[in-house]
Amino acid sequence: MTKRKGELIVLSGPSGVGKSTVIAELLGSRRDIYFSVSFTTRQPRTGEADGVNYHFVSRQEFERMIAANELLEYAEYVGNYYGTSLKVIREKLEQGVDVLLDIEVQGAAKVKERCPEAVLIFLIPPSIEELSRRLHRRNTDEEETIQRRLEKARQECRESIHYDYLVVNDTVVAATGEILSILEAERCRTPKRLDLTQSIVGNE
Amino acid sequence: MTKRKGELIVLSGPSGVGKSTVIAELLGSRRDIYFSVSFTTRQPRTGEADGVNYHFVSRQEFERMIAANELLEYAEYVGNYYGTSLKVIREKLEQGVDVLLDIEVQGAAKVKERCPEAVLIFLIPPSIEELSRRLHRRNTDEEETIQRRLEKARQECRESIHYDYLVVNDTVVAATGEILSILEAERCRTPKRLDLTQSIVGNE
Repeated sequence: MTKRKGELIVLSGPSGVGKSTVIAELLGSRRDIYFSVSFTTRQPRTGEADGVNYHFVSRQEFERMIAANELLEYAEYVGNYYGTSLKVIREKLEQGVDVLLDIEVQGAAKVKERCPEAVLIFLIPPSIEELSRRLHRRNTDEEETIQRRLEKARQECRESIHYDYLVVNDTVVAATGEILSILEAERCRTPKRLDLTQSIVGNE
Repeated sequence: MTKRKGELIVLSGPSGVGKSTVIAELLGSRRDIYFSVSFTTRQPRTGEADGVNYHFVSRQEFERMIAANELLEYAEYVGNYYGTSLKVIREKLEQGVDVLLDIEVQGAAKVKERCPEAVLIFLIPPSIEELSRRLHRRNTDEEETIQRRLEKARQECRESIHYDYLVVNDTVVAATGEILSILEAERCRTPKRLDLTQSIVGNE
């Protein structure tokens, strides 16, 4: 029987939807998932640490990585670069480890293009009003930035039709539960289990 | 928001794989699922009741149903007819109720043809040796019948590549857990949640 390859899971969702909390919950219940930390040129927010939330790099270093083709995908978002390193992800998948990417819609589309077997999940707020409440409650942004994020959120939700799954982040527990089910279901997809059929039918 | 339609779930698997036990477990944990009882012309086995395991009908009555176009699918299997009534299923799905069909591979293919959104799950034994053990343990069939069932099982497993999911019935609890995850994941598929996106993005 051939060794199972890992699943490449992409999670996107508008700013303020609660993606970080869902990811923390997810990694808590599935400790075998490798969370790929993205590279970014944006400034760390209060409480964010280099190598944990992001690898924070300079614009110059990021552009070097682009030129050296070291990124699976990258995108510019509200004036900053965000990108994913290719090498580590490839190794993990080959070892059978599931890899989780937290990337925005442009990057997700590029991943799907390069890896059609990637599973794209979009985390959607219960309503635009609830998203606005969450952004205000976070209290880290100016009102103008919040309004820009809300407009951006509408645009992103429009792009969500290109995702495989939509998960509503009404409560963290429910959303995490749905994502866990998606991951379990994806493992059962027929093309990923053909070796089982083969072992029953025999090599003809 | 439009009312969610029910999922049409088709479960197949070779004779002896333990499908009835898995179905009982499944219906125990998801009491909102409607299990569609098939019609058949085969003789009831010991312990089987009309209207519970099957609707047992005569060959003449079955052929009348075929002629009247009352069946979603039907097939002949080891000399007997098996078929699914269309009317009740359609009503349940419209009401938002998930419907489970226990049918064999020919019937499943016909359902997928008529209802492409149906979710096809194939229950596969861990190995052909284990299937043989289970058939012998059941102790209801002659050795010749068992050998015919095993050959039939190999053929059916070959057809399983047309299914959406393969679930290994190693233990009933694990197999049922995987099916429950598949059902939850299927509800999250983007085409089934477009009304959510719409409510965020607005009607443009």
